[in-house]
Amino acid sequence: MMHDKRDVFIVDTSLSPYAKLRPVSICKIRLKDDFWAPRLKMLGEITLPMQYEILEETGRLFNFRRAAGKEKGDFRGRYYDDSDVYKWIEAAAYYLAYSNDEKINRMVADVVDDVISAQDEDGYLNTYFTFERRRDRWTNFEMHELYCAGHLIQAAIALNRAINERSLLDAACRLADHIYSIFSVDKPFLPGHPEIEMALVELYRATRIEAYLNLAELFLNDRGKGLAGGDTHHIDHKPFRELTEIVGHAVRSLYLNCGATDIYMETGDGEIWNTLLRLWHSMTERRMYVTGGVGSRYSGESFGEDYELPNRRAYSETCAAIANVMWNWRMLLASGDARFADVMELALYNGVLSGISLDGKRYFYVNPLADRGFHRRQRWFPCACCPTNIIRIIASMPGYLYSVSDGGIWAHLYVQSIATFTIDGKSVLIEEHTEYPWRGSIKFSLYPESEFSFSLHLRIPGWSREASIHVNDERLKGEVKPGGYVEICRVWKPGDKVSLCLSMPIERLKSHPHVLENTDKIALKRGPIVYCVEQADNPDFDVWNMMLSLDSQLKAEWMSRMLNGVMTIQGEAITVETESFRSSLYEPINKVTYRTRKIRFRAIPYYAWANRKPGPMTVWIRSVGDVVMNLTDETVKS
Amino acid sequence: MMHDKRDVFIVDTSLSPYAKLRPVSICKIRLKDDFWAPRLKMLGEITLPMQYEILEETGRLFNFRRAAGKEKGDFRGRYYDDSDVYKWIEAAAYYLAYSNDEKINRMVADVVDDVISAQDEDGYLNTYFTFERRRDRWTNFEMHELYCAGHLIQAAIALNRAINERSLLDAACRLADHIYSIFSVDKPFLPGHPEIEMALVELYRATRIEAYLNLAELFLNDRGKGLAGGDTHHIDHKPFRELTEIVGHAVRSLYLNCGATDIYMETGDGEIWNTLLRLWHSMTERRMYVTGGVGSRYSGESFGEDYELPNRRAYSETCAAIANVMWNWRMLLASGDARFADVMELALYNGVLSGISLDGKRYFYVNPLADRGFHRRQRWFPCACCPTNIIRIIASMPGYLYSVSDGGIWAHLYVQSIATFTIDGKSVLIEEHTEYPWRGSIKFSLYPESEFSFSLHLRIPGWSREASIHVNDERLKGEVKPGGYVEICRVWKPGDKVSLCLSMPIERLKSHPHVLENTDKIALKRGPIVYCVEQADNPDFDVWNMMLSLDSQLKAEWMSRMLNGVMTIQGEAITVETESFRSSLYEPINKVTYRTRKIRFRAIPYYAWANRKPGPMTVWIRSVGDVVMNLTDETVKS
Repeated sequence: MMHDKRDVFIVDTSLSPYAKLRPVSICKIRLKDDFWAPRLKMLGEITLPMQYEILEETGRLFNFRRAAGKEKGDFRGRYYDDSDVYKWIEAAAYYLAYSNDEKINRMVADVVDDVISAQDEDGYLNTYFTFERRRDRWTNFEMHELYCAGHLIQAAIALNRAINERSLLDAACRLADHIYSIFSVDKPFLPGHPEIEMALVELYRATRIEAYLNLAELFLNDRGKGLAGGDTHHIDHKPFRELTEIVGHAVRSLYLNCGATDIYMETGDGEIWNTLLRLWHSMTERRMYVTGGVGSRYSGESFGEDYELPNRRAYSETCAAIANVMWNWRMLLASGDARFADVMELALYNGVLSGISLDGKRYFYVNPLADRGFHRRQRWFPCACCPTNIIRIIASMPGYLYSVSDGGIWAHLYVQSIATFTIDGKSVLIEEHTEYPWRGSIKFSLYPESEFSFSLHLRIPGWSREASIHVNDERLKGEVKPGGYVEICRVWKPGDKVSLCLSMPIERLKSHPHVLENTDKIALKRGPIVYCVEQADNPDFDVWNMMLSLDSQLKAEWMSRMLNGVMTIQGEAITVETESFRSSLYEPINKVTYRTRKIRFRAIPYYAWANRKPGPMTVWIRSVGDVVMNLTDETVKS
Repeated sequence: MMHDKRDVFIVDTSLSPYAKLRPVSICKIRLKDDFWAPRLKMLGEITLPMQYEILEETGRLFNFRRAAGKEKGDFRGRYYDDSDVYKWIEAAAYYLAYSNDEKINRMVADVVDDVISAQDEDGYLNTYFTFERRRDRWTNFEMHELYCAGHLIQAAIALNRAINERSLLDAACRLADHIYSIFSVDKPFLPGHPEIEMALVELYRATRIEAYLNLAELFLNDRGKGLAGGDTHHIDHKPFRELTEIVGHAVRSLYLNCGATDIYMETGDGEIWNTLLRLWHSMTERRMYVTGGVGSRYSGESFGEDYELPNRRAYSETCAAIANVMWNWRMLLASGDARFADVMELALYNGVLSGISLDGKRYFYVNPLADRGFHRRQRWFPCACCPTNIIRIIASMPGYLYSVSDGGIWAHLYVQSIATFTIDGKSVLIEEHTEYPWRGSIKFSLYPESEFSFSLHLRIPGWSREASIHVNDERLKGEVKPGGYVEICRVWKPGDKVSLCLSMPIERLKSHPHVLENTDKIALKRGPIVYCVEQADNPDFDVWNMMLSLDSQLKAEWMSRMLNGVMTIQGEAITVETESFRSSLYEPINKVTYRTRKIRFRAIPYYAWANRKPGPMTVWIRSVGDVVMNLTDETVKS
């Protein structure tokens, strides 16, 4: 059966008065590339069906049937497990937006039946608080009732947009109405785990019922009064508008920021926007991994202090990187500011993608930047937020490529694709040819339905050193600055061509010297991709003993058969080995001897690590110190 | 009132068949130095009374009176809080062993009254499991009932030895008998937090009742069967004798090892000894901070993987460093092997001592090796194990200086003091003159009651580079090797003099290169003291930006008015500053510029940090790479 395809937006800012950009429906973008398209295909063929089975196997679907009285037995799993079912529905919905997969469609229909049947007459829906636990509803802010509700709402909206399914959206509205009836009057607590805020704003966008937006605002405005713990962990230690530093549980913190950005786009509250900017600077300038991962601490799955970014004990939860993408996407929609696209892209290609194995069957919850080979992806987790979260973001990937504004098309992420837009009531088709993220050449062919004037805004990534743009073989005048959008405003004819050329050198990144673990180390990055050295590629030495000299030549080399096709980095380095620590951890420097050896090494994209034989890995590589090389005689000699 | 002083042993191996060394009573050692003696004095004048008030203020003493029916109200605090009262008693007992302090004596008497009054007729004693919680006794291995019992036993033994108090020891025996009656028959679980094992062996030593030793063995032998969680956190994942790596909650792990070592000294079980050696190597060669602190992870307060030793996020609980001293003391008693004394000394002077402020009023629970000035000592903690633990180890300090063996006296830790021994029924008085730990000259004057032959075993610390010994101005022949005991066997006359001269250069320590945070960094150490650079001494630059060159001259300088008198290290270094990271965390290396500046710096003992104005601190200092300096042309040029 062919669905009646509708506009499938991830965040529908079409009518948001304070959003600079409006979304393009996922249905209007066809990926034609070798990087993302195969991943989307794998979702439908492998990951979605496999997760469906696990949802059943772990009792998550049973819990709904049990709540409906269809099956007997004890509640299985954890009190927030409903949310995994909802995230699976949301992922499946995005997938169904561009693929007519009968099998997935049937699975979704079954799951939706189970979910709806579990709803109470008053609209309440949470399988944990049924029967014996019914009287405990809305008594404890830590029990994720609002969190699960938020995910139901998001899933219902996505499914309604994707396949015009109405019953789940009705159920979500009934639940939202029920929540409104309780929380708008009495507010027994605030969301312990933010999530419902952004869901309610989106429900407002989908229904235009203002109560939902108002409720989201109520939840935001009352933070800092102790209704959600009163502590930094829950970002309830002060009013939202007074926050200056990004703190607390990373996913909660960033989900809250998503909701706040959504509220800003509807209300234009300048205090909210300024707060969001402060938090963004706090995060990106002092508390974010080079992979775009965030939340460095195991304790509380939380942000650490400034520059507290351990590599081996990085927490960097997959969900937090996903939340980072979600938040920066909203900041980008609000502002059209390219710095948000830079962070979004960084997190997506590195911190997020490392969360799923190349075969689509296993997941990382925690994403270390250095490891001895003990950290491996798992089929599932006791707390299984990440697997369903990563599939919903991958499934929605086409929606992040472009936006539109009045009289303009904005290209954010470059992926070979065919996209159609409606600008001032006229349609434009854009064919994009590129081997991004591996090569920096991006060619667009534009086919407006007729000649007319509009702007094409091309993102020049912050990581690019040089960029040039040609329109129909004529070089665009003026500087093309990295870290912004170049607006090409002209009368476009069918067949017009634009080519963007981004230099994509291999960069050796240094980190702020107060990231103590990274002093005198570098990380390799090329384009948006962060690299690591993994043992599997370097069998002749321990990659933890590797040291790069400043002048060693590095070369990007395409390996089509490796790791589903990756650009690798190869070069010369040395290994520094020592036997001075055979039976000790610490030795006086004069007793330590080293054996150095010239070696060739190969680095791979960080997202692809741990897909082969277990072994040591590191992102940050010791480097013959650039500081040392720059010392003057005056400073060294005493 | 003058007490009838008895033999006050910390670990009484006097009759232990498999112990090489026997203890010397705390009462037989008078400290006369400027380092420890003032700390012991401060215990009695400030810390013990202050903690007594806090025990009252926080409801810990009330809980006993409540359990006795003397007062009404709810149980206050946490389920393991009784143990803090017991540790305070133990500390006070050691203190009373060498000081006639009427005030402390009265406090102890009052506390003991409260404790004893709370005991049930069947011997059970734990104030949490009274009244409404009575039926929950012995149902949950995590509730620390056996842990609290262990601390009661240790306190009771110490108090009995110190001031001949009998009632608390009787209470402890009744409780131990009650535990035996339950656990020797049925064993509902094993200790979730080991502690009672070593207490029971000591109770056996104090009473010669074999049931206590047997019960300790039962607790050890049944580990690995899932009776205490079955996981590594509780060291219950495999039988004790099959352990190969030090894992789990650091304090639990090391307390268990203390108990196992005590059992070994009574039974001679070779499998236990071999296991302990494996665990010791695992810890000291791969999982211990340069300060002797252990347990690198916040999560589970546990040991990490090999070489996982983050500095800023070091957990390194004060109690774990104390447990490290306790365990190594037992290993030393068992074997007479100096390597255990080395670790004991290291942990004591660094990882332990940093746990208490110089004014004796505040404590660290967590001991980071790098900080930005946010980590400060606290007056107390919700979980307050560390404050009472650190006073019991400081109070018992005199007991760690010497041991005896058949015909020999062993000197382990050097402290200016007067000590009396009984060797083969004859008494020997030893006067020790030294400014240790600041200077390496140690002079002994021996006064045997008459001329007779015995051995003096002098520890040559592993950290010393050169050592020489003179007996009555005549240099001892043969090599004096660091890391062992030199035995001087002769007929000693009253007035004989022995002088030990240890070279005490400033060492620059490197760590194993797989401690990722320490590559290309050094730590400064002199004698047993590990140093750090703290902002308070170095106002003109951020100590996190400091970099030492290999050839910079370092000088030890005594500062009598600073931090109660400390040897500081001063020298030249450079600071490396950069403005390239003003608004970014990561930059391509070619965009990073540095400004280097020659500076003079001062380092202080690590234990003394955070006693002044808050500011950055670090133990590990960037160093102009020794590796770089040793590179050959062949390895650098490509």
